[in-house]
Amino acid sequence: EQVAKLLEMKAAICPEEGKQKFVLKTPKGARDYNPKQMAIREKVFNIIVSCFKRHGAETIDTPVFELKETLTGKYGEDSKLIYDLKDQGGELLSLRYDLTVPFARYLAMNKISNIKRYHIAKVYRRDNPAMTRGRYREFYQCDFDIAGQYDPMIPDAECLKIVHEILSALQLGDFLIKVNDRRILDGLFAVCGVPDSKFRTICSTVDKLDKITWEDVKSEMVGEKGLSPEVADRIGEYVQLHGGLGLIEELLQDPKLSQNKLAREGLGDMKLLFEYLVLFGISAQISFDLSLARGLDYYTGVIYEAVLLQPQNDHTEESVGVGSVAGGGRYDGLVGMFDPKGRKVPCVGVSIGIERIFSIMEQKAEASEEKVRTTETQVLVASAQKKLLDERLKLVSELWDSGIKAEMLYKKNPKLLNQLQYCEETGIPLVAILGEQELKDGVVKLRDVTTREEVDICRGNLMEEIKRRTCLS
Amino acid sequence: EQVAKLLEMKAAICPEEGKQKFVLKTPKGARDYNPKQMAIREKVFNIIVSCFKRHGAETIDTPVFELKETLTGKYGEDSKLIYDLKDQGGELLSLRYDLTVPFARYLAMNKISNIKRYHIAKVYRRDNPAMTRGRYREFYQCDFDIAGQYDPMIPDAECLKIVHEILSALQLGDFLIKVNDRRILDGLFAVCGVPDSKFRTICSTVDKLDKITWEDVKSEMVGEKGLSPEVADRIGEYVQLHGGLGLIEELLQDPKLSQNKLAREGLGDMKLLFEYLVLFGISAQISFDLSLARGLDYYTGVIYEAVLLQPQNDHTEESVGVGSVAGGGRYDGLVGMFDPKGRKVPCVGVSIGIERIFSIMEQKAEASEEKVRTTETQVLVASAQKKLLDERLKLVSELWDSGIKAEMLYKKNPKLLNQLQYCEETGIPLVAILGEQELKDGVVKLRDVTTREEVDICRGNLMEEIKRRTCLS
Repeated sequence: EQVAKLLEMKAAICPEEGKQKFVLKTPKGARDYNPKQMAIREKVFNIIVSCFKRHGAETIDTPVFELKETLTGKYGEDSKLIYDLKDQGGELLSLRYDLTVPFARYLAMNKISNIKRYHIAKVYRRDNPAMTRGRYREFYQCDFDIAGQYDPMIPDAECLKIVHEILSALQLGDFLIKVNDRRILDGLFAVCGVPDSKFRTICSTVDKLDKITWEDVKSEMVGEKGLSPEVADRIGEYVQLHGGLGLIEELLQDPKLSQNKLAREGLGDMKLLFEYLVLFGISAQISFDLSLARGLDYYTGVIYEAVLLQPQNDHTEESVGVGSVAGGGRYDGLVGMFDPKGRKVPCVGVSIGIERIFSIMEQKAEASEEKVRTTETQVLVASAQKKLLDERLKLVSELWDSGIKAEMLYKKNPKLLNQLQYCEETGIPLVAILGEQELKDGVVKLRDVTTREEVDICRGNLMEEIKRRTCLS
Repeated sequence: EQVAKLLEMKAAICPEEGKQKFVLKTPKGARDYNPKQMAIREKVFNIIVSCFKRHGAETIDTPVFELKETLTGKYGEDSKLIYDLKDQGGELLSLRYDLTVPFARYLAMNKISNIKRYHIAKVYRRDNPAMTRGRYREFYQCDFDIAGQYDPMIPDAECLKIVHEILSALQLGDFLIKVNDRRILDGLFAVCGVPDSKFRTICSTVDKLDKITWEDVKSEMVGEKGLSPEVADRIGEYVQLHGGLGLIEELLQDPKLSQNKLAREGLGDMKLLFEYLVLFGISAQISFDLSLARGLDYYTGVIYEAVLLQPQNDHTEESVGVGSVAGGGRYDGLVGMFDPKGRKVPCVGVSIGIERIFSIMEQKAEASEEKVRTTETQVLVASAQKKLLDERLKLVSELWDSGIKAEMLYKKNPKLLNQLQYCEETGIPLVAILGEQELKDGVVKLRDVTTREEVDICRGNLMEEIKRRTCLS
């Protein structure tokens, strides 16, 4: 504290010295989006938002920070990754870690018992960033959630349908959505002989099966988590299973598992879910996978995670590891944690992990020849001779006022060549050229940048002609 | 720190007790946006973004936090309002205070010497909130800036044109854009006898003229800032002036002011600016106002501020005080503060203060009879009898897949009346009703919610019919 003050004072006294030491960068794990990246981001968001709207969702927004205690006790071991704000007097605040806990807080605070909403916003985690693989400390989440007491598995199936629609629309290649249920996991832990108190921690270990081998998972269970090798082996028999309706039927007949009430409930609902997924025509991309466990504490029922199956880009090794691009599940207890009377609001939702998708789309855009336009300008107002600034200002203003996207160079006397070059660089398709002769004749020379064709257009017809031409392309 | 840990431990041991003390709220000065507010927000953003795009702007995004030192020394006295993050090891971070300083950091870091960009994002100020008047600690700014070395006043005039277009499109009633120039202010301070070192602090005092009387401003100048009454009176003669081209001409002839180089430059540019504003057809809403000073340190030339002239809502007194809804100016030195070699990039920009506009629009929406829809659903898939869940799931899925915005109730056997009621509550215009008979006949009963008319439509023509009907409305 005192050191910081002294350094600040020093910087104030010797600004030159301070300037030299200053590092020009964004904070660790955070990044700027340049206009090209923003164009891609807009495209991705449009696809996602139009899907959410197609499913009748409303949208809400919450502050970037919450009272620290709102986040306390919601994230298990991950709580250490929460960004806290400095105590500057007043309330203790933290940056949001996800959009789910703020959503639950919002529902409890406003006593809302049912809503279907989406929320697209940045969340913050003091994790180890791996920026080339799309892992940041500040990153977007696109969440869709259905809150309310409804008949089983109908909203759950819709969440999976949404993931399927979005991943298909984004054209990222083949994908698989793994599905499991916390009740099935808890049931199988029970019948395998795991003590109740170790359910959640064994869950985290199981969740690593997509990254490390069963042998390594087993040795963590036995070595770090203190299970006996026999118990671990019994778990191993189950969690390496994956399949569809057939596997569900099989497990419903399993002599041990079928004795457990939780597992039976979970498997019954899983069967129902798969029947709905068949009706939705998406069951081919869904796998009932007993190794899926998900990290967060708050899930209580169905859980799921979508993974991209193929590397998007063969010449970089990084892209193989893109992994999970969406995940979610049912969390029926979270809202109750906030409600003063503990009233529960059952919820199910999904979060699309946009940053990894951005990375893939950016790589694609770079690899392709196509030039990404970062503006939508339809016409540049240009002049062929000097001293026509006033005329250009008047024309560009008329264009703006009739809703046409127009630009002009901010120079008194720009050269025609420079004006045409600007159009080629930025992808502006049309140029409206003013000259002494055109002004006398009451016309504007309209030039097509690609074909270089020029036609004189009556000043009165110009807007219409520009609209007609840019509507076609 | 220790106390916090103990409290956390206690909460973990006795969760019930912890729960009772927990306050369910958003942080001071921050708020949630509910779906209705989001619908208004979307409408306002669409108007603003389409204006920015009409003027050929690209967009960028920057992190919500910056290195603390990036913000140091940029905001003068307001620096105390910056939110700092807790030191959790690693870099010292602060939440952004505006979008201008991050923009300048971005330009310097990426060595960009010209760009026209907009940026819409939340900024953070630990100010005293007045939420009923749209003053928050977390609030949106919509910034448009032009960076680059250009001929004088052309980009500056475009910024004013943009403010004019946006305020007109938002239909908030009459407005006035006040314009001044820091060089004119500095020049007049000099000729009035203010010592150089007091220019900035006298600027802040002058800036209060829109809220307090000249007498109070004068007494602050003399009492707090230590000017002699004579100097203050000389300033008073100037800063109470406002007008148009006529006033500019007059001041250019002013025997004292015309002797000062800075003032002469400022007045010359102001004249040019007004000529351009006349060509843009917006000079009637612009006032050259010598009392406008703006709070921030970094302005170097033209400055401006837009105010709404009429109360929007006669029956609340609050709405009279809406005040400034946009502001900005030229800051030619800011990028140079970040550049290791001090290279300058001249910039001019404007920031639209959206929260005040939201407040007005929300009040308007509440006052009007019109119901704001928060979803875009075109059709509800409903059933007239029981046991048709599977058929509803199949139909709604077909609709989604052909791009139609559709919903169904998440119940196995909903009553028809409840389904129709849901449409009336949420504004869904059409219902596609399935029944045993319809399924046999291969049709769907399409019902118009407002007119209650029902027609049987061939299943194969349903999508087209829905699109046709919802396109018309």
